[in-house]
Amino acid sequence: MKAYKELSKDELLTLKEQLNKEYEDVKAKGLKLDMSRGKPAASQLDMEMDFLNVLDENSVLKAEDGTDCRNYGILDGIFEARKLMGDMLGVPAENVIICGNASLNIMYDTIARSMIFGVMGSTPWCKLDKVKFLCPVPGYDRHFAITEQFGIEMINIPMTSTGPDMDMVEKLVSEDEAIKGIWCVPKYSNPQGITYSDETVKRFAALKPAAKDFRIFWDNAYAIHDLYEETSEELLDIISECAKAGNPDMVYEFCSTSKVTFPGSGISAVASSEANLDFIRKTMTVQTIGYDKINQLRHVKYFKDIHGMKEHMKKHAAVMRPKFDAVLEILEKELAGLEIGSWVKPGGGYFISFDAMEGCAKEIVNKCKEAGVVMTGAGATFPYKKDPKDSNIRIAPTFPTPEELAIAADLFVLCVKLVSVNKLLGEM
Amino acid sequence: MKAYKELSKDELLTLKEQLNKEYEDVKAKGLKLDMSRGKPAASQLDMEMDFLNVLDENSVLKAEDGTDCRNYGILDGIFEARKLMGDMLGVPAENVIICGNASLNIMYDTIARSMIFGVMGSTPWCKLDKVKFLCPVPGYDRHFAITEQFGIEMINIPMTSTGPDMDMVEKLVSEDEAIKGIWCVPKYSNPQGITYSDETVKRFAALKPAAKDFRIFWDNAYAIHDLYEETSEELLDIISECAKAGNPDMVYEFCSTSKVTFPGSGISAVASSEANLDFIRKTMTVQTIGYDKINQLRHVKYFKDIHGMKEHMKKHAAVMRPKFDAVLEILEKELAGLEIGSWVKPGGGYFISFDAMEGCAKEIVNKCKEAGVVMTGAGATFPYKKDPKDSNIRIAPTFPTPEELAIAADLFVLCVKLVSVNKLLGEM
Repeated sequence: MKAYKELSKDELLTLKEQLNKEYEDVKAKGLKLDMSRGKPAASQLDMEMDFLNVLDENSVLKAEDGTDCRNYGILDGIFEARKLMGDMLGVPAENVIICGNASLNIMYDTIARSMIFGVMGSTPWCKLDKVKFLCPVPGYDRHFAITEQFGIEMINIPMTSTGPDMDMVEKLVSEDEAIKGIWCVPKYSNPQGITYSDETVKRFAALKPAAKDFRIFWDNAYAIHDLYEETSEELLDIISECAKAGNPDMVYEFCSTSKVTFPGSGISAVASSEANLDFIRKTMTVQTIGYDKINQLRHVKYFKDIHGMKEHMKKHAAVMRPKFDAVLEILEKELAGLEIGSWVKPGGGYFISFDAMEGCAKEIVNKCKEAGVVMTGAGATFPYKKDPKDSNIRIAPTFPTPEELAIAADLFVLCVKLVSVNKLLGEM
Repeated sequence: MKAYKELSKDELLTLKEQLNKEYEDVKAKGLKLDMSRGKPAASQLDMEMDFLNVLDENSVLKAEDGTDCRNYGILDGIFEARKLMGDMLGVPAENVIICGNASLNIMYDTIARSMIFGVMGSTPWCKLDKVKFLCPVPGYDRHFAITEQFGIEMINIPMTSTGPDMDMVEKLVSEDEAIKGIWCVPKYSNPQGITYSDETVKRFAALKPAAKDFRIFWDNAYAIHDLYEETSEELLDIISECAKAGNPDMVYEFCSTSKVTFPGSGISAVASSEANLDFIRKTMTVQTIGYDKINQLRHVKYFKDIHGMKEHMKKHAAVMRPKFDAVLEILEKELAGLEIGSWVKPGGGYFISFDAMEGCAKEIVNKCKEAGVVMTGAGATFPYKKDPKDSNIRIAPTFPTPEELAIAADLFVLCVKLVSVNKLLGEM
């Protein structure tokens, strides 16, 4: 394939005419597809309906320690659930608190708590003139939405193939006391699918922040969400690395079963040092009497242990893998060599990150939408929804059926071509 | 029975000796009972184990509007759950948002949101020098714990048999702009079991607060928690009363199914005006993707509608009623005429409120504890855990078995007598 930039104006105009025709044909089909969010497909959820059989009127609803899971109490969650989620992260049960149905909510609460009460004795962030967060980009829009809502200034940190640019992270946190945190999705990052290297994790653990209340927000959302069994990527345990480096309290780690059992009906967890957890408990004990222990027990009984959970995840992978492969194949087949976009093949997670030519992402997403395929909004992967290069697009291939996905991916590459041609013709 | 205060010193000393002997006998039994919290008994929970049969792998997990309850989404909760909880409160489904497993958490979040973001455009409370809340006393300790944690100054408002002292409430809120809210348990109040009269509700609705961001925190925790079918007490709907009085945005109402299905595994709701709910949604949409819709669906399928829910509550009442009656009978039999304590027979809710002679509550609770019966801490029903008269004790009769309860109640009246005698003898 010849790179588009090598084409003459006449060639581009001919190509444009042809692509426009193809586009109008697709538009006429009246598609209505959604590739916007990292949602499991119905076929994934169908596969785990037996999760609802785990507990019935004949079940014994006692936790291992004898607690009646039907009644009030147990702020931290039942121990066996703490163990299960701890094993998901590779940390001891004692370092884990189980919360409600979403880790996002724990992250929000963690920021809210820091705003109002500070962090283990520090000045409440709401009393400070300026609070800043580092945001590896592209990243997860819902993280950025939280810090934006609290008026926290966000600073873009470029991602590399081994994680965030650690030179920049080290420099900034050591110099600026207003920097109180960094958002990380360290494994199969959202949206690029990058797993932080051992060196990156060690450099995180060894940070020397100017702010004593600086915390790493380690959202390990895809801890066991491999797509390919043979290439499961390993992530170093940040909590023990921080302890080894003399920074035991520098990290909060988050996870959930939202993409393990049912989204919205899972359990979530925060893992951290004993000191951090004790501080969290001080507010949590006023905020709630305890989270849903029956659902915790349901999870433990369904999976038995982390091995059961990992086996279960293979079933999800089996449904998702062909979808990722299909999109990657279409990208490869249709765009390779054209030099109008690049992408990474992820080893896990829920997304394929696509980088279009500069200044083209918004228009590509618009074109897709016009033809009935909703993508994640261009810019969503950046703080303030502002992608400085207007280049990154997050593809979420999991929710559509394989048939829908093929149609959507075909439309996507068509829009990439069309917009790129327009760009090269100087028409946008 | 002769009132204790009419007894001579010698009579008191004889009585003391006799009571002390009885007390030592009970102590020797090594009791270990808990009357401290408003927890349903295991026998209540046993009765509703079929709740766990509602959903299994053959269930259709679609909401009425077609939403797949297994997947992400629907910030407000599924409509049929909003309708169910709305019917519990007597408000339209449109005025209801369903949240997680505990209404306490919504109340906490509501205060936290006001602290950080203000209320519909007002100055964030954390930026103000002083924020105050009115606290009808005796009241619910977990309410007071929230406002205490946020550094909100609490002002005691005496309860009357028709609700809080409204003269005082009207005067204070109209004069002091720092007063931003009031905690209310308007039906079968915690701990007295008082239902606010129509006049009280109307006076609440017609308040003219100095602070535009003043809100009534209407914790309708016991909306359908009658003990006696024939005497179900009616509470006026505060939301429509506020609207009629020209104060549509002045109230947040809260409820949950914590004492309807399983505590900790229920669903909760906040009801309010459209404007308040819109403001709440602005933060909620960043805080969560949505709460547990499968559990919402489980509740709707189990009860069908509010009639099913009310029928179900009769089963709880049938278990609880004999316990309340047993305690009330022992109080009546052992203490009537002694003038060392007073109590109210509640028509619903989870508590019996007992007022000892001034300065005796702490010591009574201590004595009970020493003999193996844990009561709610004396003072817990007041802000800062400070009962100015050291008089109020909250009795929670629901959790023990009837046999345990009889033993605990006997011990309680014994301790009331013993401490009162000591008080009258000037020995404390």
